[in-house]
Order: sequence, then C-alpha cells, then structure tokens
Amino acid sequence: MSKEKKIYLSEKDMPTQWYNIVADMPNKPLPPLHPVTKQPVTADALAPLFPMELIKQEVSSDRWIDIPEEVQDLYKIWRPTPLHRAYNLEKALGTTAKIYYKNESVSYAGSHKPNTAIPQAYYNYKEGTKHITTETGAGQWGSALSYACNHFGIDLKVFMVKVSYFQKPYRKMLMNTWGADVIASPSHLTEAGRKILAEHPDSPGSLGMAISEAVEMAMKDDNTKYALGSVLNHVLLHQTVIGLESLKQLEIAGDYPDIVIGCFGGGSNFAGISFPFLKGNFTEGKQTRVIAAEPASCPKLTRGQFQYDFGDTEGFTPLLPMYTLGHNFVPDNIHAGGLRYHGAGSIVSQLLKDNLIEAQSVKQLETFEAGVLFARTEGIIPAPESTHAIAVAIREALKAKEEGSSKNILFNLSGHGFIDMAAYDQYFSGNLQDHEVTDAEIKESLSQLDKIL
Amino acid sequence: MSKEKKIYLSEKDMPTQWYNIVADMPNKPLPPLHPVTKQPVTADALAPLFPMELIKQEVSSDRWIDIPEEVQDLYKIWRPTPLHRAYNLEKALGTTAKIYYKNESVSYAGSHKPNTAIPQAYYNYKEGTKHITTETGAGQWGSALSYACNHFGIDLKVFMVKVSYFQKPYRKMLMNTWGADVIASPSHLTEAGRKILAEHPDSPGSLGMAISEAVEMAMKDDNTKYALGSVLNHVLLHQTVIGLESLKQLEIAGDYPDIVIGCFGGGSNFAGISFPFLKGNFTEGKQTRVIAAEPASCPKLTRGQFQYDFGDTEGFTPLLPMYTLGHNFVPDNIHAGGLRYHGAGSIVSQLLKDNLIEAQSVKQLETFEAGVLFARTEGIIPAPESTHAIAVAIREALKAKEEGSSKNILFNLSGHGFIDMAAYDQYFSGNLQDHEVTDAEIKESLSQLDKIL
Repeated sequence: MSKEKKIYLSEKDMPTQWYNIVADMPNKPLPPLHPVTKQPVTADALAPLFPMELIKQEVSSDRWIDIPEEVQDLYKIWRPTPLHRAYNLEKALGTTAKIYYKNESVSYAGSHKPNTAIPQAYYNYKEGTKHITTETGAGQWGSALSYACNHFGIDLKVFMVKVSYFQKPYRKMLMNTWGADVIASPSHLTEAGRKILAEHPDSPGSLGMAISEAVEMAMKDDNTKYALGSVLNHVLLHQTVIGLESLKQLEIAGDYPDIVIGCFGGGSNFAGISFPFLKGNFTEGKQTRVIAAEPASCPKLTRGQFQYDFGDTEGFTPLLPMYTLGHNFVPDNIHAGGLRYHGAGSIVSQLLKDNLIEAQSVKQLETFEAGVLFARTEGIIPAPESTHAIAVAIREALKAKEEGSSKNILFNLSGHGFIDMAAYDQYFSGNLQDHEVTDAEIKESLSQLDKIL
Repeated sequence: MSKEKKIYLSEKDMPTQWYNIVADMPNKPLPPLHPVTKQPVTADALAPLFPMELIKQEVSSDRWIDIPEEVQDLYKIWRPTPLHRAYNLEKALGTTAKIYYKNESVSYAGSHKPNTAIPQAYYNYKEGTKHITTETGAGQWGSALSYACNHFGIDLKVFMVKVSYFQKPYRKMLMNTWGADVIASPSHLTEAGRKILAEHPDSPGSLGMAISEAVEMAMKDDNTKYALGSVLNHVLLHQTVIGLESLKQLEIAGDYPDIVIGCFGGGSNFAGISFPFLKGNFTEGKQTRVIAAEPASCPKLTRGQFQYDFGDTEGFTPLLPMYTLGHNFVPDNIHAGGLRYHGAGSIVSQLLKDNLIEAQSVKQLETFEAGVLFARTEGIIPAPESTHAIAVAIREALKAKEEGSSKNILFNLSGHGFIDMAAYDQYFSGNLQDHEVTDAEIKESLSQLDKIL
C-alpha cells in the first residue's frame, strides 16, 4: 500500500555542471548566420545582446560546463525538484507501464523557466549589465526573469504579447510583484512596434513581434542587454539540470526510462529533461526513445521544413538552422501560449533531422482531456503546455497496456496551471475546438522564406 | 556560500500519527453545547453531520492518533513538504535571527488545507458517505476537498461565499476541474439561503451564511454529511503533520525554535505548525513563544471576548467556547479571505485564555509590504493569509536585530498567492487601505450575543 511516491534529492546531490549535448552529437548543429551578410555569426556580432560568458556557452563544445556557486545557491530556493511516480494515473489507465514525472512546477514562477533565468541574470550582473529587455508570451519566462533580475539589481523591461497582456493579467501582476516593468507589445517604444501598429493598429501581437521589439531596444542602447527564454543553445544547456537530477532520482528508484517526453515550444524544457538521457544513447549504448510533444496547431517538428529562418518577425535575429513553419506563421490562439512559436532551435532540429529524437503532435482537446485526468488522479493542475507531454505519456502508457509490456515512461511536468484556469473553464464549457492547420497554410507561410534567403 | 536552503524529509520519515494537544493541555477545552438545550453535545447529535470516526477524534483525549495507511499514501502526493531557511530574507533584514519557514504551498491545492481534506474524505468513504456539503470563503478549503472527494468517489457540493464566487473565478474553476459542484451562497437551495435573500437580495454572503446553508442541507438528508475546514478539534488534529515534520527537519538542521508563528483564521494552520512545539513546552520544559497572527480588521484574539458562540450566522452549529467578535460580525473585505472568521476554535481559545500562546494583529498594508519583500527575496509569492505570519516573523526578526540576539524563528507559509494576484495589483496601485475596527463596533456585535445565550 504505502509505496514511495516521490524521490527527493538532497541539495548536496544537485548537479554542479550543466551538460552540453553538442559534445556528443554525431552531427554538430549548423552555425547561425548573420541576417545581412548570411555569413556565420561571430561572437562580436552577438556582444551587443549578450554577456560574453553566455556567448561562449552558445558556441561551446565542452561536454560539461560548471554551474557557478552563486547560481547553485539560488537554484536551492526550489531545486532539486521532486520526481514523482504517478501511481494514481497508472491505476486509472490500467497500464502495465510505470509512469514517472519530474515536477518543475514547484519553482517560484511555477515552471522550469527559472533554471535559465537565474544564470542569465547572474552572468549579466557579473559583466556589469544594468538593464535587460526580453519578451514573453504567456508570461512564464517574463516572470521567471523578473525575480532573477530583481535579485541581481538589474532593471528589466518585458515586452508581453498584447493579447496575453490583457488575457493573462495575473502573469503581468506577478512580474510587477517581482519588480519588472511590463509593456504590451506591439508598443510605441520601438520602431518595430510603431511600424506594426501603423499597419495593424489592432494587432494582438506575437512572440516574434515582441522579440523584435526587445532586440531592437537592446541593440540601440549600449547599457542594455537582451535575454531569451528558449531556442538558443545556452538556454537549453541551463535546463539540463532537470534531466541530470531525474537521472539520479531514477537511479535511486532502480529504474531507467524507455521513453522520455517533453512538451515542445522552443525546446527548453524538452532539452532539459531529455538531453542527459540522449547522452546515454550516444555514449552508453542505451536506447531510450525521446519524444517531443507539440501542438497540432503549431506543428513545426512534424510538418515543418528544415532550413535557415529568423527567430523573430522583423528579421533582427541571426538566421538559425531550424525546423520551421516560417517566421510569419501565426498559430491558432491555443491556451498553451508557450508552445506557439514557429521554429525549433538548431540543436533540436539537427537531432530530429538525424532521427535521434521523435515528435508527435497533439490536438488541444486531447491535451485538456489528459490534463483533467492528471489533475483528478495526481492532484496537480498542469499548465496547458505540460498537458501535451501528459497526453503523449498517456498514449504511450496505453500502447504498453495493449502490448502487455512494462515500459518505464518519464515526462517533464514543466509547470502548473493555477494561472491558466480560464483555459480549463473554457474546456468544461465546451467552447474549445480543435483547429487543423492545412498543408496549404504551411506551404504559403514557408514560401515567404524563399524571398529572404 | 553554498548553504543548505531547504531540508527535505523522505517519505519514510513522515509522521504516522497525529498529535492531539488535548492530552497535554493543563486546562481542557470546555465542551460544545447543543444550540437549543445548551447542554453538552452528545456524539449522537453530531452523527447526522460527521462520520463516527471524526466524532471520536473530536472528543478524544488520546495523545496520539494513528494516521490510516490510505491517508498516509495520499499525503505522499505532496508531503513531506520542505522546510526552508530564509537566508535571502534574513540578509535583506540584516537580522541576527535565523528564519525558517515550512512550505505548505507545494500541495496540489496550494495550501495546507489538503492535510485535513484527505482524512475527512477518507473517513466518510469508509463509513459509506455518498454526498458531502461544505462551505468555502476564498476557495482554498473547497478546492482541497474537491480533489479528496473525487478520489474517494464522493459527490461534493461547495457553498462559496458569493462575493468570492465572482471575485475569485479561478478558485471556482479549480473546484470544477477536480469535479465538485460550486454554488454561490446565499442561494435558493436552502431555507437559510432563501431567508437571507428575502431580506437582502444583494447579500454578498459570508462564511457564516455559507456554513448555515451547507449544514442545513446535510441535516435534512440522511445520505449527506458535512465537512468543515477549520475551527474543530479533529481538523486541527490533522494539521499537526505540519509541525511534526518541522520538528524533525529542525532537528536535522540542529535547531529548535524560540518563536513559532502561524496566521490565524479559524486556527487550522496555526495549530498545525505550533501544537507539536507546545507539546515541548508542556512536557519537556521548552519555552517556545507561539504567536497567532490575525488581521487587524478581524481581531478576535486580541480584541474579542471569551464566551460561547455559534460557528455560523443562523445558529445551526453547536455553541463553542471561543474568543469571538460575535457570529454576526462582518469583517472588512480584506484580501485574506481565509482569515475573515468571527471566532477561534475551543482549543486555541483555551490556550490563549491560559496565556500559553500569544496573538498579534497586523494591518493589511503591513501584510502586503511583508509579502512583497518575501516574494522579492525568497521568490515565492505568498497567499494574503500567509503574509500575516510573514509580517509577524519580520517584526520579531527586527526585534532580535535591535537586541542583537540570535533567535530561531519558524513560521508557516500556509499557501501561495498565484490565484490572489489581483490583491497584489491593488496594493501596487495604491488602492488598498487599512480599516480600523472601532471598540464600539465590536461591543455592538458582541452585545447581540447576550440575547441568545
């Protein structure tokens, strides 16, 4: 009856280094290209945006990178996070599989985003940065960075996608409580914003537009740097604490995963949970299946194209080699705002191209069905983003049941849904619908890239 | 630099028994009286409302009561909760005191309420209950019980104070997500509700009214029981897991508290954190100061009167010996909805009468000031209720700093504030004011009791 439901690590067993998967990839990711010259971007070109230590991490091929003591110390506010065995969910499914989940919802911001917010703020602080700009969609990243910047005495401006600014006022209030300044994007503060507003005064904004605004402001001011919460190599690197802890916790449980699942927006929580297990595949002959769970309405991994594309709408960022739907693709307004991004980072894209990871897309109704079952069995209300990982975990657990096989499934619970309850309300009221992207829409969006590249 | 910030217990070190303080109280609490006969209430009289096992706990004087294995098993969904050392807060205050806090915000409902929701649903299930009614103010208790009832296949109706029903839609959605039925109170479903609505069609409701409705519905239907989230002895008993775990965790840290603090509404989280340390005072010669932190706008402990009073507005509940402001007292509409209750339970009231605990009242602006400092140092956004405990902890830490003494302070972080962000927003916008209760108001409210008793 009384089985261990959670495995804790003590703080002294926390990882002291991040894992850099580039060291072990059979094919290294292609380099980012300068948006104008189309030549590989130099460290100098990135220097106006990022502190040098983060640029070094961005291009590093060292296998392990030390986590500074000050960062470890701040991680301890909420890390190590618990690893749960989902006994109640297993029972409800009647599955022969074991389901584990890493609970990143216990952080101060309620998601995995602080894992990179803390080191990014720290390295900026060490190099004397006084101001940072960033963008945020649903607000998870912005709130994570707000606390981190406040801690290091850095002033933070967050460009928040306008539709979320009004739909998710609680996230804005969180950022204010941690001391950040939040601006609805597109705004009149930047040329990019003014240009968009001139053409579309009622623009609801998008993550791509908000990135353009934040990058422009940082580029124009010597005292201001920029921070990004996903996609880039150094961001994925910082998130590997998730998988490194899980590895140790599963060792304590006496298990190793057959399947590892993360939801997929820009790739940060997916990379965090899975890269340390891909290391097992690359260097120890393990055969863990790694699955990215993306929304059917933003299917860059399952239906996108591998090619160079911009990270933002206006084309300010370097060109990245990515699975993309085109940087002007506007996904349906699903509740999983953190997954509404047109492209995948260069590492993940290379891994997918080389068939070293898999991807599955999930429709919105299936994700909420999975989320409600999870809430009623395991208690925790998952973030709409995380329900994508849960849905795929349930698919795989039911497949194991059919086969009568005993699979070990691990997924990342990237965040809780306390601030997204309106989404659940809409689901229960029957007002949520599935939106199918047509091949023609994707083709049209991708065709615009030919003009640029 | 890298000090341990959190102390975890493993699941096998969780308490297997609840601590019943009645066994060690120098003066036992006075018995509850029947509302009509004014004679001590018999177990039989409570049987329509509660399962027999909870009634036994309500009147028990056994020192330790076993926690059923099934309840321990469900506790493991989130327990044991971490004990944090608030290094960053200490540093901001420049205090010579050590500040520890028990983090009950990590439960599925975001507060300590599941500690009693789980066993209450369990005992009802064991005795065949199919339906339960309850009331909820801000929604913490209702949401905790929703998951618990759903787990045991019990249908739950929650009477939610009408003003909260509309002001806190997220909490209602939480309850729906866990499968409960939520009704705005006063409602037309009960005689009590209809009576109130006939006199005051626009009544915003109150906890007292909602209790009347829930109790009436349970009294009238043989298949329906009632559940309460605070005040009663068995509820306080279940919460002692908080303090029992803290005791073990502080032992690991090599410390013992000089001061223990809990915010105070009906007494459940306060009792949970403090009773196991009062045991130390009663049986081991310890001298820990135990402080209840109540809102200045509902000052029953600091300015109320010790006497028999009803638990609800309509006078359906037994008369309890309590520090009270009178059961018709309507506190100012502060954001800490969970602390807006007119009376304290009989155990806590007896302890205060015997000078074995202390109480301090805190004005709303001081609580939010404390809450924001806590959020910006320790990261976690505290519930408005919990900010009362933080404010008193800060007062005591600053006092220690003045004296240059090294006190160990422990407080209970009873919940997080993710769903209460509107309160913070109002604080930042400067729209929050302190409301002073006058002596005349309290006297007037208490004078109504003379007519009844």
